[in-house]
Amino acid sequence: MLSVADALHQILQQVKPLGTEFSAANTSLLGKVLAENYSSDLDSPPFTKSMMDGFAVRADDCQQPNVTLTVIEEIPAGYFPQKVLGPQQASRIMTGAPIPTGADSIVPKEQCQDSQTSVTIAATVKRGQFVIPQGAEMKSGEIVLKKGTLLQPQHLGLLAAIGQTSVQIFRSPQVGVMPTGSELVDAPLIPEQGQIRNTNGPMLLAQVYRAGAIAIPYPILKDSPENLSRGIQQALDTNDVLILSGGVSVGKYDHLPEVLKQIGCTTHFHKIQMKPGRPLLFATRGEKIIFGLPGNPVSSFVCFELFVRPTLRVLKGETVTAHEFVSIPLAKDFETDNNRPTYGPALVTFTENGPQVTAQSWFGSADLRGLGNCNALIEVEAGRVSKKAGEFLRCLLL
Amino acid sequence: MLSVADALHQILQQVKPLGTEFSAANTSLLGKVLAENYSSDLDSPPFTKSMMDGFAVRADDCQQPNVTLTVIEEIPAGYFPQKVLGPQQASRIMTGAPIPTGADSIVPKEQCQDSQTSVTIAATVKRGQFVIPQGAEMKSGEIVLKKGTLLQPQHLGLLAAIGQTSVQIFRSPQVGVMPTGSELVDAPLIPEQGQIRNTNGPMLLAQVYRAGAIAIPYPILKDSPENLSRGIQQALDTNDVLILSGGVSVGKYDHLPEVLKQIGCTTHFHKIQMKPGRPLLFATRGEKIIFGLPGNPVSSFVCFELFVRPTLRVLKGETVTAHEFVSIPLAKDFETDNNRPTYGPALVTFTENGPQVTAQSWFGSADLRGLGNCNALIEVEAGRVSKKAGEFLRCLLL
Repeated sequence: MLSVADALHQILQQVKPLGTEFSAANTSLLGKVLAENYSSDLDSPPFTKSMMDGFAVRADDCQQPNVTLTVIEEIPAGYFPQKVLGPQQASRIMTGAPIPTGADSIVPKEQCQDSQTSVTIAATVKRGQFVIPQGAEMKSGEIVLKKGTLLQPQHLGLLAAIGQTSVQIFRSPQVGVMPTGSELVDAPLIPEQGQIRNTNGPMLLAQVYRAGAIAIPYPILKDSPENLSRGIQQALDTNDVLILSGGVSVGKYDHLPEVLKQIGCTTHFHKIQMKPGRPLLFATRGEKIIFGLPGNPVSSFVCFELFVRPTLRVLKGETVTAHEFVSIPLAKDFETDNNRPTYGPALVTFTENGPQVTAQSWFGSADLRGLGNCNALIEVEAGRVSKKAGEFLRCLLL
Repeated sequence: MLSVADALHQILQQVKPLGTEFSAANTSLLGKVLAENYSSDLDSPPFTKSMMDGFAVRADDCQQPNVTLTVIEEIPAGYFPQKVLGPQQASRIMTGAPIPTGADSIVPKEQCQDSQTSVTIAATVKRGQFVIPQGAEMKSGEIVLKKGTLLQPQHLGLLAAIGQTSVQIFRSPQVGVMPTGSELVDAPLIPEQGQIRNTNGPMLLAQVYRAGAIAIPYPILKDSPENLSRGIQQALDTNDVLILSGGVSVGKYDHLPEVLKQIGCTTHFHKIQMKPGRPLLFATRGEKIIFGLPGNPVSSFVCFELFVRPTLRVLKGETVTAHEFVSIPLAKDFETDNNRPTYGPALVTFTENGPQVTAQSWFGSADLRGLGNCNALIEVEAGRVSKKAGEFLRCLLL
């Protein structure tokens, strides 16, 4: 049976970034990926500027302490000097203001005795001190934001710095979430005999949203080939990805695999060597992607994070080549005994002593409460396994 | 001068959670905090159910291998059994379906020879096998989501499971972001002599958004006491928090501290023993909170993450008592020489060998590019410091 790593590898072979689009440079960009390089349209700083409140001087004038200079001008931030500094002259200057022609250094006001028309400089001056030269941070024409950058708050600052109010990004995938199963009813309905509430729909929508994609809710589909065929085809018309929840195990009433075949989808695999979530189905039709997730909530949650999230990341322009496991030491001993490699809910805590992971106990793949406050999945090999506190385990951070 | 830890302590003494409100249980809840306990309105599972596709049997009938039983019914998921199971009888059953009265165990179909009207069970049966008892995951009346829970996707599943489509949460703070400074112009304008683009406005809006609060943009305020007074008073009418960017250093044109006093705000501190970002101002007026952040972009970014983010987290109902530093080993040697403790941009990478942190080089507190792809701040003590790869340093994850 297919391993978790091979399954993701097969998926990633079928997936490539969606097209690009323009977006306004605002908070909606967070988590999106730049589709172009962006270069600066100016030098930054645009002028040689002062790092301190104090006096702009010529270092040559101040090679000994207690020199007195004539103050010829005052330069607040936002104003441009009108006078050229000659020998034995100084200009009063604020942090961020342009230094006047002729000056080459700044003396912080704490080192100055300021008597309005003149100033006495207590210390000697090192040429260029407390001055940021024009273009020191970035030069006009220089690329400052690269294609492929996953956008964070500081990049919005940088886009503003280069005067860019719209940018080209990779489009975010639109993802339909379609719960299937005749036994499902939506909250707040009270389930009748034999029914259970649709928990995976709301949970998957939130997982899609957290992964940075656009989540589109669909109503519950009853388990019949006609319903499935019609529902899936319509959803594929408008979504990049369709997540079906339930209907993928091998029970008599699980029609999904056959329906997918009839409507021209190629099923790439339908089982994975893992627990929970063995009966994961992955199919494509052209560039459209279909995941059939197991109906049990824990299986559904885990399969999403292991396989759907990396898919969505690639679609929106990120580079993903394999699962990004991180080794984290166990906080407590724990034991498992499973016939397949397990990816269980876990809580990673970041402490003064470094990160630690605690496996969460869960009561089978239907146990939503077992997911608790998990923020990671922890990998444990098959068989009877006893892990000790301090041992490093592979975790996938959520 | 105030230490970073003491400054946050002073802030947190002035800050308490905002009021509560009702919200629909959908993806908008992610990152919000529950303001009530929520208990289950039913047992889950609501009926004793099968974990496998197979046959519901009485364990007493199957204490030896190769017993043949009469099949009396077929129970798909979503249907309720109509027949009571008597001795030597079995019901065909699907995963998730309720087991019939009289049955106590499930035999997976892989262990059965199914001839429509009868079934032969290959192995002996352990009572209760592959059965999830009613209420095993949660019982009616039991609290399953506690006040104070920071909501993640799995909690949306759990809310659906207990039939809850609206919940009471702590209100998210509304945060005005007001750039100040006569030298500022907005992108895409081309700065004239002595002007620079407003980078902190867009960056702070994105930081506010990332922190889970509501970001309200304000236009650039020119540096005059009249403008500041009018602008701040109006912003305090409608926001829980006001972030002023720029205008807090001690230059002649920095009117903010005086203006705040005139309009009845209490300034709690105005300087911190740190780099970048020494001139951080923290003030309150009643329950309204005002931060004056330094105008340099790196200072502004760092001050937000160290002081504003914890404040916003408390306002929206999270528990924060101090900075949540985590110790992470350095990826590479680095050296610094600063006269104050430094909180510089850093990149934490999560690898197969565990997390590692790399300090980012930055060219002074105006160097936006120095923030690069930083996802952490790294703390380094004052003085000439030489750190070696592998040494653990305190980091604040962003």
